[in-house]
Amino acid sequence: MKNDHDARMLFAIELARRAGELGLKYFRDLDSLIIESKGHQDLVSDGDREVELFVRAAIAAEYKQDGIVGEEHASVAGSTGYVWVIDPIDGTANFVRGIPAWCVVIACAKDGETVVGVIHEPSTGETFHCRRGGGAFVNGRPIKASIAASLEDGSVGTGFSNRAEADNIGVLIRLILAEGGVFFRNASGALMLAYAAAGRLLGYVEEHMNAWDCLAGLLLVEEAGGAIVKPDPKTVLQDGTMVIAGGKDIFPKLRELCSGVFAASSS
Amino acid sequence: MKNDHDARMLFAIELARRAGELGLKYFRDLDSLIIESKGHQDLVSDGDREVELFVRAAIAAEYKQDGIVGEEHASVAGSTGYVWVIDPIDGTANFVRGIPAWCVVIACAKDGETVVGVIHEPSTGETFHCRRGGGAFVNGRPIKASIAASLEDGSVGTGFSNRAEADNIGVLIRLILAEGGVFFRNASGALMLAYAAAGRLLGYVEEHMNAWDCLAGLLLVEEAGGAIVKPDPKTVLQDGTMVIAGGKDIFPKLRELCSGVFAASSS
Repeated sequence: MKNDHDARMLFAIELARRAGELGLKYFRDLDSLIIESKGHQDLVSDGDREVELFVRAAIAAEYKQDGIVGEEHASVAGSTGYVWVIDPIDGTANFVRGIPAWCVVIACAKDGETVVGVIHEPSTGETFHCRRGGGAFVNGRPIKASIAASLEDGSVGTGFSNRAEADNIGVLIRLILAEGGVFFRNASGALMLAYAAAGRLLGYVEEHMNAWDCLAGLLLVEEAGGAIVKPDPKTVLQDGTMVIAGGKDIFPKLRELCSGVFAASSS
Repeated sequence: MKNDHDARMLFAIELARRAGELGLKYFRDLDSLIIESKGHQDLVSDGDREVELFVRAAIAAEYKQDGIVGEEHASVAGSTGYVWVIDPIDGTANFVRGIPAWCVVIACAKDGETVVGVIHEPSTGETFHCRRGGGAFVNGRPIKASIAASLEDGSVGTGFSNRAEADNIGVLIRLILAEGGVFFRNASGALMLAYAAAGRLLGYVEEHMNAWDCLAGLLLVEEAGGAIVKPDPKTVLQDGTMVIAGGKDIFPKLRELCSGVFAASSS
């Protein structure tokens, strides 16, 4: 059994890049893509499913005893305490419509706590990576979360899904605007978390995200010196979590704005 | 005097790509970028200014008698009825913070009516182009606006500036969500108009855009078979315009939602 976190991180970086190349093949041939609806404004394509199978096979070959949780296929129980948490294509709505803003997300958690996070955006060639305690990087260069203390100094990434009351995000956006802030939504939550880690956005807020969408990005923000609402390690892999993350001086303001808007924000 | 629209279009495509390469040089060396604030949430960098000077010089060399209107420098009056309308970097807030979603915009108008539009996104290598009456294209392939008739079938691009009441966009977003729609905002209005032309977004709405931000994208949407609120040729170069654009079957719904929210929507 391999359990060295650096080795897992390097493995995840390489795997995310290879998975991204496979995703790009589907993306460049959109007319052939088979798209299905999983629910209201929730799509999946054969590209998502095939990329996830590719990632799962690579993990199963290298870390046979680890668990796997992914967006499109059933969970695999492991025996090592390590669980790989993967979203083959985050930003599927972009992917299937030809918007070049989607990413491959690979996280590894030990006993429910994320230890490795990788987010790779094939269209721009950016790979964000981190290991708990090791800092955060894009294409090998260190990144830092925003040092801003005012919403007037940047943009806040926002997202929502059919798992939250749709209007809540509308209410939150009005609060952000009223404070002189600006919202940003490129429809890939993982990518926006990576941008928050890099200080490109002040932060990112979403009422509920699944583990495969947020764990890598949340660790990136932490390792980049930012602050987050910590997910519950006992429940996050199964149930997902509320996400509030950003630079540490803007984080209290983000949490204040979300409080009373997000259903879970009082917990 | 050259006045052939095809020649102007080919000139604009080539020029946008060269300007994009110059912009990328600044983008890849962000730490050296000189950034100033022009107003609330409104930035400019030496990259914007230098790229605009580069574009202006190329136009002045090739089409000496044409006018030029650009975002960062004073207008040049011409004598041919043709005016080049340029935004060297649309999405400056992204550009200065390292988000790879910004573009070079070059339009050419004759007597206030756009005849050529080019939008080039250097980070992904996509170039959208059109000539009035000649169809719309991305990297040489024809594009079509969305055929959807329901907001549930996609996302609506949104934007705002300090020239409109900030809360209006929050109100509009709540209306979009209430109809089962989704909003998208990657902070480059021109790029989102190009995405609307390509059917990647259902449409794009913004209460006020300057001519350099919207003319190329509006012509792209028209040439891709979509519908727009037509700008007034007598005033648009100077005053800008309200923007509502999208697939022709969704356009009436977009206009209905904006009516009563956007200040100018009753005109």
